[in-house]
Amino acid sequence: MNTEEVAKKVVEFVRKQAWHDALEALYDKDIVSVEAFSAGGGPTETRGKEGVRGKIDWWVNAMEVHSFDANGPFVANDRFVVQYDADVTDKQSKQRRKMSEVGVYTVKNGKIVREEFLPRV
Amino acid sequence: MNTEEVAKKVVEFVRKQAWHDALEALYDKDIVSVEAFSAGGGPTETRGKEGVRGKIDWWVNAMEVHSFDANGPFVANDRFVVQYDADVTDKQSKQRRKMSEVGVYTVKNGKIVREEFLPRV
Repeated sequence: MNTEEVAKKVVEFVRKQAWHDALEALYDKDIVSVEAFSAGGGPTETRGKEGVRGKIDWWVNAMEVHSFDANGPFVANDRFVVQYDADVTDKQSKQRRKMSEVGVYTVKNGKIVREEFLPRV
Repeated sequence: MNTEEVAKKVVEFVRKQAWHDALEALYDKDIVSVEAFSAGGGPTETRGKEGVRGKIDWWVNAMEVHSFDANGPFVANDRFVVQYDADVTDKQSKQRRKMSEVGVYTVKNGKIVREEFLPRV
């Protein structure tokens, strides 16, 4: 798949919240997944499919998702961007909040090798 | 300025379509500006402030802008993303069209050193 095809598949999976299917179909085994902030304040990198599976499992267990929208994709060469708007309730704290962020993805040999998430400020 | 401050200034300038002010205030002299496609098909890099000024002058002369909206910014570490929706008429061809794209920006020492534009597909 080229970058645009991978990008469109990501949007398709996200709209179904089919996170595990996306991981299996589209991610490279050496995926690097970067969140803006860790508990300590700096960026957090997760490496490898197992690590990303852990992030997905955490999300699915922790959040009640009222809506999850994807805007895009935006594509150029080996990069694409998808903008997300989510409305979720943290199951433990019962706090409901809206989240807005973009994912910036890098594709190599038809697989996602890097993803970085940037929250709206 | 940190990344978030630069990002918010970009959004502020863009909403006023104050392209030259943004260039002077926020861009590094060695800025690299990357468009998704050139006339030949591949990516196009423009280097340096003079080059970016040329792109701005081209845009201002070529387009009648009916609206230009910025969504964001989305910020993490040294990167930020802004999503743009424009409604423009090409003055020469008289063709009116809507454009949607994201800009992915890299900041170093308080200045934008790289910008990449990814059109919506």
